[in-house]
Amino acid sequence: MSIERRPSDLGSFSEAVVASGPGRWIYVSGMVGFGDDGRVVTGGMAAETAAAFDAIERILERAGGGLEHVVRMGVFMTDLGDYADFSRVRAERFGERLPASTAVQVADLLLGARIEIDAVAFVPE
Amino acid sequence: MSIERRPSDLGSFSEAVVASGPGRWIYVSGMVGFGDDGRVVTGGMAAETAAAFDAIERILERAGGGLEHVVRMGVFMTDLGDYADFSRVRAERFGERLPASTAVQVADLLLGARIEIDAVAFVPE
Amino acid sequence: MSIERRPSDLGSFSEAVVASGPGRWIYVSGMVGFGDDGRVVTGGMAAETAAAFDAIERILERAGGGLEHVVRMGVFMTDLGDYADFSRVRAERFGERLPASTAVQVADLLLGARIEIDAVAFVPE
Repeated sequence: MSIERRPSDLGSFSEAVVASGPGRWIYVSGMVGFGDDGRVVTGGMAAETAAAFDAIERILERAGGGLEHVVRMGVFMTDLGDYADFSRVRAERFGERLPASTAVQVADLLLGARIEIDAVAFVPE
Repeated sequence: MSIERRPSDLGSFSEAVVASGPGRWIYVSGMVGFGDDGRVVTGGMAAETAAAFDAIERILERAGGGLEHVVRMGVFMTDLGDYADFSRVRAERFGERLPASTAVQVADLLLGARIEIDAVAFVPE
Repeated sequence: MSIERRPSDLGSFSEAVVASGPGRWIYVSGMVGFGDDGRVVTGGMAAETAAAFDAIERILERAGGGLEHVVRMGVFMTDLGDYADFSRVRAERFGERLPASTAVQVADLLLGARIEIDAVAFVPE
């Protein structure tokens, strides 16, 4: 097995993810939750999180991968009071294949976003 | 040599760490300094840092590695005024095998923590 | 090709960077824009960004790489109002070989810096 996830009992993430063997690494830039109009979507944290994951998924697919290959995500929010909304959407999107994750509250994000997410993915050969 | 560390004269970290050859990558989620009661330990930055490193070490060991395999850590604090306390504990825990590191002051962390630390480790075959 | 960059139309970064095949990974610690006197340079964001990239480039060269091998950078600023200045310098330094990037505004940085940048580089064999 080339991606091995070790579940955490602390939330919708893995305490660790192990990648081994030959494969491709995809580094995805931090993405905010844009809508089709090129602006951050309205609807609050759940909507922005879903849109950010949509963006990451599209980028991964263009690079030959998918959300199932994400080993680690970095999560930057402007208000950790929204963490539960974020976490629920993450659980829905990743199912049993939860990546390792770090989530912190930053002072500000570009473009008025509530959340920015980046990702590292490994696509085994 | 599959993990090569390049010392920095700026602190208890390496300016760079080089990983090469076959091996396993372990991505560890951001950890805060929990005690056995599942709450952030009391005692300030040094105690929280030690507890966070304990958590990372346990996770790495469960995944087949150890602190000696950490190539990079991300450090998020709520007050950089505590940096010296953090740095001293890091120096004690890592000795000559200091990882590359990035440390910043964020606006807030989950669970009232003063510090959250994540890690990337490489276990050469 | 062992480093494949996928351009973004959102700024001077790649939406994703793919690394594959045998090679060496270089993890560079977060660097601020020091001058030769060991203090953060004066001159504002553009000057600090240039000095931070100089530091990263020197570290990469000592480790057998260069800016052309950077696949991902993490960018931490104290004021995203300076983002345009940062972005212009990044575009100048990386040209067509733009890394994936995440940029956020943090609450504070060490040593009075306006910006801290870390990097992950891949040097194909």
